[in-house]
Amino acid sequence: MLRSEISALLGIQYPVFQGGMAWIANAKLAAAVSEAGGLGIISAMNTDSEWLRTEIRKTRSLTDKPFGVNIMLMSPSAAEMAQVLIEESVPVVTTGAGNPAKYMENWRTAGIKVIPVVASVAFARLMERIGASAVIAEGGESGGHVGDLSTMVLVPQVCDALRIPVVAAGGIADGRALAACLMLGASGVQLGTRFLMARECDIHENYRNKLIRASDTATIVTGRRSGHPIRALKSPMTRQYAESEYDSSVDDAALTALRAGGLRKAVTEGSESEGYFMAGQVAGMLKNEESAAEIVHSIVREAEILLKGSTRWLE
Amino acid sequence: MLRSEISALLGIQYPVFQGGMAWIANAKLAAAVSEAGGLGIISAMNTDSEWLRTEIRKTRSLTDKPFGVNIMLMSPSAAEMAQVLIEESVPVVTTGAGNPAKYMENWRTAGIKVIPVVASVAFARLMERIGASAVIAEGGESGGHVGDLSTMVLVPQVCDALRIPVVAAGGIADGRALAACLMLGASGVQLGTRFLMARECDIHENYRNKLIRASDTATIVTGRRSGHPIRALKSPMTRQYAESEYDSSVDDAALTALRAGGLRKAVTEGSESEGYFMAGQVAGMLKNEESAAEIVHSIVREAEILLKGSTRWLE
Repeated sequence: MLRSEISALLGIQYPVFQGGMAWIANAKLAAAVSEAGGLGIISAMNTDSEWLRTEIRKTRSLTDKPFGVNIMLMSPSAAEMAQVLIEESVPVVTTGAGNPAKYMENWRTAGIKVIPVVASVAFARLMERIGASAVIAEGGESGGHVGDLSTMVLVPQVCDALRIPVVAAGGIADGRALAACLMLGASGVQLGTRFLMARECDIHENYRNKLIRASDTATIVTGRRSGHPIRALKSPMTRQYAESEYDSSVDDAALTALRAGGLRKAVTEGSESEGYFMAGQVAGMLKNEESAAEIVHSIVREAEILLKGSTRWLE
Repeated sequence: MLRSEISALLGIQYPVFQGGMAWIANAKLAAAVSEAGGLGIISAMNTDSEWLRTEIRKTRSLTDKPFGVNIMLMSPSAAEMAQVLIEESVPVVTTGAGNPAKYMENWRTAGIKVIPVVASVAFARLMERIGASAVIAEGGESGGHVGDLSTMVLVPQVCDALRIPVVAAGGIADGRALAACLMLGASGVQLGTRFLMARECDIHENYRNKLIRASDTATIVTGRRSGHPIRALKSPMTRQYAESEYDSSVDDAALTALRAGGLRKAVTEGSESEGYFMAGQVAGMLKNEESAAEIVHSIVREAEILLKGSTRWLE
């Protein structure tokens, strides 16, 4: 059975995290992933803290296994959310979009394991220094907000720089990538886009169908000019954004307005015209809807077979 | 000893290619890599065909092992170069920047193995259909001209789509990445930037020193607006290019002029002000000058150890 340092640290069966995707990762999805032996993660987004408390309790009613919550540190309600995690004794928190330093001491005192998402070696080092239990090194092939370095390059460099475990994210859809990331030095993987295929993931059917139809070149990054690059499926909206980005007469506020609220419209309404369908480059590898358990188990099984058979390259 | 389908196909000892970098990959470097058991590759660039013939003969005088030539298909002298490969019975040709269809039949008749560089599944399929012996699937974390998909995502998708062997490129600097790429389904790897560290690589010492000092975030892609994205080390020139790219009053010709001739000035003069120091994202992983043989052997050795020990994740 596949095991690693991160699964031992968190008391989970398999070193497979489900990314805390805004508007998407709720109690139902997180509980299904945790129940399957991975680490399900609820996205706290910028909803209010009572919504988060409800989702945490709902997750607990669905599974007694460890789970996590993702906090977007730029959210106006981040401080409130941070407190809810302590009150509800959430086992794991992952953080994005900022530095969790000011919450660190309280979280650690409460016994919460803090696992920040990092996109560079310098930020990873800083996270280890302030007391992170592990980091998620996320390559720019991921969906949503993206960094610059790819997973293949970021993961080994972060592993070289830190002593705490490193979870790889970005561009991971199957057991081949899990086995590959272990070779790079990672202790596990986090998948976002692949879990959009989970039956327990409440996205509009248009969103899921777009992903199933997507080819390898279906995604595009927009927002590099404004310093907030985001990867999503190509659409008339992203095409307009991409073209306008090179037009200096269009300011950043106008560009931001183009995609504002678009993720919610994609997830809840499947809106063709106003939906902003965030997805990683792995979109082209998605084939059909499955249960979260089928996803977790097939990834782990595939990696186990590859690792067991790896002496076939040696003679 | 590490073996794979591609090493058997080409009669090389190790499945490690040295990328055919323009202005850099000459007979001296290619012969050193081939002599070490990898596949050395001469860059034909857009010099004249007699220069290429001389380099091919020089390579043969330095090693009796297989080697390759990289043809930039957009080069005005591509047709002439294509003929030289036949006259000189070069064992392997890799192609970039275009479709090699018109040369395919003559090359194959001459017994030359053709291995195009691909950046998408559709182009990879086309290359298999017209008779390629293998493809090099190159992720956008590479140096020089870059595609959009990362190695982690491109390689498994190309492997799923083709029956011929796939060599992974982009973001590969050590044995961890070689082992990872084998897990993704690749049959071998191609490294460019890492071979800039080879003692047999004739680049200006400023170029090598810049690479040794580079951090993980040292590279940047410019030229996305013009459709010719190129990755290089950050410099005052690339900063100016990147800023001007979002200024619609600066046209593409002016941008192109900024970096014109810059690679040659980097390689031969190490020019701080006018040099355009192409490099992949792995620049941050380079530590010191070594012989080409040390590079090839340390990569292979590291991968062998990882593959041999891969059952440590299974219990």
